[in-house]
Amino acid sequence: MPGGPAESTAPEAWNLSFMTLEWVGDIDGALHILDQTLLPGSQQQRILEQPSDVIEAIQQLAVRGAPAIGVAAAYGLCLASRGCEQIEQVRERWDAAIAPMRQARPTAVNLHHMVDRMNRVATSPAAAELDGVSLRVRLLEEARAIEAQDQHFCRAIGVAGADLIPEGATVLTHCNAGALATAGQGTALSVLYQAWRNGKRFRVLADETRPLLQGSRLTAWELQKSGIPVDVICDGASGSFFQAGEIDLVITGADRIAANGDAANKIGTYTIASLARAHDVPFYIAAPSSTFDFTIDGGEQIPIEERDAEEIWNVSSRQRPAARIGYRNPAFDVTPASHIAGWITEAGVLKPPFLEIR
Amino acid sequence: MPGGPAESTAPEAWNLSFMTLEWVGDIDGALHILDQTLLPGSQQQRILEQPSDVIEAIQQLAVRGAPAIGVAAAYGLCLASRGCEQIEQVRERWDAAIAPMRQARPTAVNLHHMVDRMNRVATSPAAAELDGVSLRVRLLEEARAIEAQDQHFCRAIGVAGADLIPEGATVLTHCNAGALATAGQGTALSVLYQAWRNGKRFRVLADETRPLLQGSRLTAWELQKSGIPVDVICDGASGSFFQAGEIDLVITGADRIAANGDAANKIGTYTIASLARAHDVPFYIAAPSSTFDFTIDGGEQIPIEERDAEEIWNVSSRQRPAARIGYRNPAFDVTPASHIAGWITEAGVLKPPFLEIR
Repeated sequence: MPGGPAESTAPEAWNLSFMTLEWVGDIDGALHILDQTLLPGSQQQRILEQPSDVIEAIQQLAVRGAPAIGVAAAYGLCLASRGCEQIEQVRERWDAAIAPMRQARPTAVNLHHMVDRMNRVATSPAAAELDGVSLRVRLLEEARAIEAQDQHFCRAIGVAGADLIPEGATVLTHCNAGALATAGQGTALSVLYQAWRNGKRFRVLADETRPLLQGSRLTAWELQKSGIPVDVICDGASGSFFQAGEIDLVITGADRIAANGDAANKIGTYTIASLARAHDVPFYIAAPSSTFDFTIDGGEQIPIEERDAEEIWNVSSRQRPAARIGYRNPAFDVTPASHIAGWITEAGVLKPPFLEIR
Repeated sequence: MPGGPAESTAPEAWNLSFMTLEWVGDIDGALHILDQTLLPGSQQQRILEQPSDVIEAIQQLAVRGAPAIGVAAAYGLCLASRGCEQIEQVRERWDAAIAPMRQARPTAVNLHHMVDRMNRVATSPAAAELDGVSLRVRLLEEARAIEAQDQHFCRAIGVAGADLIPEGATVLTHCNAGALATAGQGTALSVLYQAWRNGKRFRVLADETRPLLQGSRLTAWELQKSGIPVDVICDGASGSFFQAGEIDLVITGADRIAANGDAANKIGTYTIASLARAHDVPFYIAAPSSTFDFTIDGGEQIPIEERDAEEIWNVSSRQRPAARIGYRNPAFDVTPASHIAGWITEAGVLKPPFLEIR
């Protein structure tokens, strides 16, 4: 994965009146996030002041989306030495924070990449000569560079993919790969935002995305803010819309992409990809290069997070249902490269072996 | 469709401690139903005393499932002349009740068949000679015969299909085609109950079936009562279980089956059928002959009910979300005959052109 441009690039105006995450203050500042567990009913900020706050927010999906998790983790590490001045203390806190942050969630690889990138800075020869405060300044700079790069890559993904959207199309998306999933304007939704800005007119079908409803709660919410027409459907319904010929294109994000192009994304993505294939509808993944994991050959090596059964039963019941009823709640599935028409990245619409970003 | 045996057949014991619907009393009695909108949290009876009560219960899905709707409608018509003795009044009330009852829901054809069957009795030459009370007695007898036939057919479906379940299999089902969907022991689930009684051991994956969660609320509830192991999954997750080779067979009910075998069933069924086909897993429909509509050639002629958007948004929000967010809520989809391995009926496992039941 290339380092990519780290210059701060002012995001182009888009009509979204929210900020997914924001570092507020100097090295003793804090990470402010929009608590996505409360959307769309309530638009509330949550202030994270320790690495454990960030880990908790990631695990609760208060901040979610592979790119946003990566940025949050980078800032989260900066919180470890909040208030410290002594280099020994800064280093001790830093070392203790790395492993738990890296393990906050298992599937998205951006988290690993960004934690590793931060740690390379912390353990670089240049850093060895810094005092406590200077090291903290340097680390916060790196986290800011990661955020700026994410914004830049989001925009570049939009530009790379916008021409794929046919005029008058209906585009199906799943989960939320929008501004709420990144520090910028999203991945899959960035393509839609850019196409719309270019004057294309189309409509979106958003799977509600059970169990946590990121489609109906988040994607529909941010698309309507931008004025893009969106209809929410239940996950099982997409088959009937494919069958009716109503879907022209599918585009989703990804949480980890193997070297061969197999892509892990929110549970339900493979179901759509299989339907798209059966109906000859192109299925695209949009993701920055930080989502690629070239250390693994294929999707079968991607760890799939299993989450709590309560995410499923709590919509129909206040109490856990009869003990004899089991639940299976894998949070992700893997779409094989054979089902993917193209991988939209900041470096263009790519195909395996992805030489442009290796 | 043949009339079939109308003799009362005492249902074999099955371990279900509930009654989906029951006529209580004589001709001035009432229809008691288990209110399925409250399950599994509360097991509450609702007493229906007028045809409009039955129509409302059907529309709210308090009583649901194509066969159960047919039986409820038959009894519902008997309620029209509750308390009447004069033949003129009985006939007047009867005639006024037919059309609204027939239109209570548009997709399931069992409703039409049973209303028509009741009306054939009411308008037969034999009925023309009856006084008010005698006609009401005759009509209630017919409704009881419809109920008994449904119970008999459910059992016969179970016997016909039980050998299809492989020992040690994992069986996927969608929505609820169980005892709660019929006056007997179900259609798709009857096959499972019978296989279990025959000593087969297997497990069930139940799609939760958004928007109304008939899978997690009803199917899981009745299966655990019978001791059959069941895991609930989100609708979008079935793809990943197919991909992992965990699903050996799919079996669902149906709401209307066209002459060519195309089958309308709960939204999400076609999605599973398409996945089953892509993974070479056999997909079966289980339904009594009353579900077949030989007046239509293919599934494209089956009317698909669109239900209120609130069914989708009310799980994530107390108030209707932003007005610019649309919802599409088709309640059914159509699985083409090409995707169906067999149609399990009371007359055996059939294939088009279904000569055995025409």
